[in-house]
Amino acid sequence: QINPQRLWDSLMDTARIGGTAKGGVSRLTLTDTDRQVRDWLKEECERLGCTVMVDEVGNMFAVRPGRRSDLPPIAIGSHLDTQPTGGKFDGILGVLGGLEVFKTLQDSGYETNAPLMLVNWTNEEGSRFAPAMLGSGVYAGVFDRAYADSREDRQGVTFGEAIEAIGYRGAAKAGSVTFGAMFELHIEQGPILEQEEKVIGVVQGVQGMRWYEVSVTGREAHTGSTPMSMRRDALVGAARLIDRIEGIALEHAPSAVGSVGLIEVQPNSRNVVPGHVFFTVDFRHPDDTVLDVMERKLLAAIDEMAGKGSLGVESKKVWESPAVRFDADCLASVKKSAQAAGYQARDMISGAGHDAAYIARVAPTAMIFVPCAGGLSHNEEESTSFEECAAGAQVLLGAVLDYDGR
Amino acid sequence: QINPQRLWDSLMDTARIGGTAKGGVSRLTLTDTDRQVRDWLKEECERLGCTVMVDEVGNMFAVRPGRRSDLPPIAIGSHLDTQPTGGKFDGILGVLGGLEVFKTLQDSGYETNAPLMLVNWTNEEGSRFAPAMLGSGVYAGVFDRAYADSREDRQGVTFGEAIEAIGYRGAAKAGSVTFGAMFELHIEQGPILEQEEKVIGVVQGVQGMRWYEVSVTGREAHTGSTPMSMRRDALVGAARLIDRIEGIALEHAPSAVGSVGLIEVQPNSRNVVPGHVFFTVDFRHPDDTVLDVMERKLLAAIDEMAGKGSLGVESKKVWESPAVRFDADCLASVKKSAQAAGYQARDMISGAGHDAAYIARVAPTAMIFVPCAGGLSHNEEESTSFEECAAGAQVLLGAVLDYDGR
Ligand SMILES: NC(=O)NCCC(=O)O
Ligand SMILES: NC(=O)NCCC(=O)O
Repeated sequence: QINPQRLWDSLMDTARIGGTAKGGVSRLTLTDTDRQVRDWLKEECERLGCTVMVDEVGNMFAVRPGRRSDLPPIAIGSHLDTQPTGGKFDGILGVLGGLEVFKTLQDSGYETNAPLMLVNWTNEEGSRFAPAMLGSGVYAGVFDRAYADSREDRQGVTFGEAIEAIGYRGAAKAGSVTFGAMFELHIEQGPILEQEEKVIGVVQGVQGMRWYEVSVTGREAHTGSTPMSMRRDALVGAARLIDRIEGIALEHAPSAVGSVGLIEVQPNSRNVVPGHVFFTVDFRHPDDTVLDVMERKLLAAIDEMAGKGSLGVESKKVWESPAVRFDADCLASVKKSAQAAGYQARDMISGAGHDAAYIARVAPTAMIFVPCAGGLSHNEEESTSFEECAAGAQVLLGAVLDYDGR
Repeated sequence: QINPQRLWDSLMDTARIGGTAKGGVSRLTLTDTDRQVRDWLKEECERLGCTVMVDEVGNMFAVRPGRRSDLPPIAIGSHLDTQPTGGKFDGILGVLGGLEVFKTLQDSGYETNAPLMLVNWTNEEGSRFAPAMLGSGVYAGVFDRAYADSREDRQGVTFGEAIEAIGYRGAAKAGSVTFGAMFELHIEQGPILEQEEKVIGVVQGVQGMRWYEVSVTGREAHTGSTPMSMRRDALVGAARLIDRIEGIALEHAPSAVGSVGLIEVQPNSRNVVPGHVFFTVDFRHPDDTVLDVMERKLLAAIDEMAGKGSLGVESKKVWESPAVRFDADCLASVKKSAQAAGYQARDMISGAGHDAAYIARVAPTAMIFVPCAGGLSHNEEESTSFEECAAGAQVLLGAVLDYDGR
C-alpha cells in the first residue's frame, strides 16, 4: 500500500520549483528550475540508497537493487519538465509516483526479484526544444546525440549548450543503461476517464503525430501608405493557413486533431505590414494513413498559396512519431493490478505523446492513466485529485510487482 | 543652394547608429541608439551656434537667430526614431534636411527675418510606444504628459522610465517652446511619385487613422489529447478576425487600408492550444466617415465571434487621428519653391501619419514629399536617391525662405 499523503506532499512541494502565480508550473527543460528539481530527485533517490546515473542527454536513472542481479531492471519512468504554463501533474506524477513506489517498498523491506529503476527523461515536452520525447528518443535510437545537441530553442540556445549549462551532461552513452521493461504512470490529459467515471486507463498505445514548421514570406511595408493591392502581407497568408489547418482536422474529426500552437511575426510592429511569419503545425490521428491524407492536404494548401505568387511559403516536417502499440504482458500486469485494487478501468489510446512511445521500440512497455479535471492539461489549472494520484501510484506498484513476479 | 553631398554623408553616417546587417536602421525611440543620435544632433547644432532646448517629453528644439527677434521662429521638424526594421530615410531626411538648410545658410552668411528652429520630435513611429506622433501630440495638446509617461512598451517599460533612462527629460514644458509655422520634409513611403515620375509631393493633408487593440481569450489545452469539439482556440479566432480585417479594408479599397501588424500568442508552445492572443489593428482612410463604417464592421465581427460563446473577445480603440488639411500659405511656399527649383511636383495626401499632422492644430504647417523606391518604407530596403534627397532639402530651403520673406 503506497502512502497517498507522502505522494501528494511530494507533488505539492516540487511544484514550488518553477511554481507560477496561477498555481501551475513553468519548468522548461534544461533551465535552472529543471536543474533544481533534478538535484532534488537525485538527493531523494540517494537517500533511499539508490545509485543515480545520468546519460549523455541528461536522462536520469536511479537503481534499487533486487534479489537477483542477473535480471534486467524493471523501469518506471516519466518526466519532470513542463510546458511554459504547465500543470503540477503532467509527467511529474509518473516520476513521483515511481519514487513513492520505491519508498513504499523500502518501508516494508520488500525485495523485488529484478532491480527497479526510476527514470526521469529529458525534454519530454518538446516546448523549449522540438521535438518532444527527445531524451527517450535518443535512448531508443530514434535520434542520435548530435541531433539532440543541435536542437535550438527560439532564442537560438542549443540543447547541447543548455545541458552543459545546468551540469547534467552525464557520462553514460544514451541507451547503455538498459532495463527489461518500463511502466509509465501519467494523467490522461483528455476527457474520457472523467466522462465515463473510470479511475484507471489501461493505455494500449499512442496515436501518430507529426509536427511541421511553416514560413510565410511577404514584404515589410508601411501600413498607412501601402495600398492593399501592393501588399504582400505574410500574416494574412498565415491566418488563412491557420484557418485551413483547423479545417483539415475537422474533416477527419472526431479522431483527428490539428493545431497551430506557436507563431512568430517579423517585425511585429503595429504600423508595419508583416514581412515574415513562422508557425508550427501539430497533426495527430491514431491511424498513420489518415495522417498521410492530412499531410497531403496541408501541403496542397501551402502550394496553392505559394502558387498565387505574392507570398513565399515553405514548410518542413520536423517530426513524425508513428502510432504505437504497447506490450501485451505489461498491459496484462496493469489490468490485473487495477482489478486487484478494485478500480474501474478502461482500455484507451493516448492522445498525447509520451516517453513510453519511444521506449516501446526497445523494451516491453505499458502506460497507466488517471483522470484530470475537465480533461485539461498544458494549462496551469491542470488538476488531478489526491485520490486519483494515489490510485495511479497504487496501480503502478501492483503492476510492477506483478510483472516482477512472472 | 544646399550641399547634396554633405546631406547624403550625414544620412549615411547617422545610419550607422542602430544600423542593421541588411542596410536598414533599428533605432527605436528612447533606446540607447536614439540617445546616441540625439547627442550627435545636439552637438552638430551647437557647433552651428544654435541653442538647443529639450522639453519634458524629449522633443529637441535648436534655434538659429534671425534678424528680428520679435518674429516667431519658422520650424523645420521631423523625427530620428525608426521602426525595429526601418530604413535610413523615414523621418531622418526631414531632420537632416533641416540641418543641411541651417548649414547652407551659415555657409553663405544668410540672415533670415524670423529665427529658424530645427525640431526632432520624440516617438513619431509609435512602434515601441503606441500611439505614433506622441511627442508632437503632447506638444500640440492632443495628449498630456502624464498620458505619454504612462505608455508601456511590450516589455512593460514606460515612456516615462525610458526617457529618464536616456537622460532626455528636458526642463521645458511641452508646448512652451513656440514657433510660427512648421515645414516637414519626408519620403512619401508610397508609390505615387515614383509611378508618375514626379520629384516633389506638395502634401495637402494626412488621411484619418485609427488604432485598436484586440484580445482573444480561449483556453490553453493539450494539442494531442483535446478533441476539436472541446477546444477554445484563441489563435483560430484571431486568424479569422485577421482575415476579416483585410476584408473590411478591401470593401473600401482603393482608398482604405487595414492591417494587423503585431500579434502575441500565449503560451506560444507547439503542443499547447493557444489560450490568449493579443493583436493590433490599423485602419486608415482620407474620409473619417468611412473610418466610422470600417470601425462598425470591425466591432460587428468581434461581437459576432464573442456571441458564439467559446471565445472571449475584447477590443479597445487606442488611437484616433482625424484627417488633416495643411495650411494654404505654407503650401503656397512649398509649391513656389518646387517651381523655382524646376522640379515636377504634384499635390497629394499622405497615407502615413506625421508630426506635421498634430502640429497643424497649433501652427500653420505643410509637408514636402520626395519619392522612395517602389514606394517601400518601414522596411530595411527603404531607399531614396542622392538626387531625390537633395531635391527635397532644396525645396525645403526655398519654402522656408519664401515663407520668411512674406
Ligand atoms: N504528455 C505530454 O504532454 N507530452 C508532450 C508531447 C506531446 O504530446 O505533445
Ligand atoms: N511616417 C511614418 O512612418 N509615421 C509612423 C506613423 C504611422 O503612420 O504609422
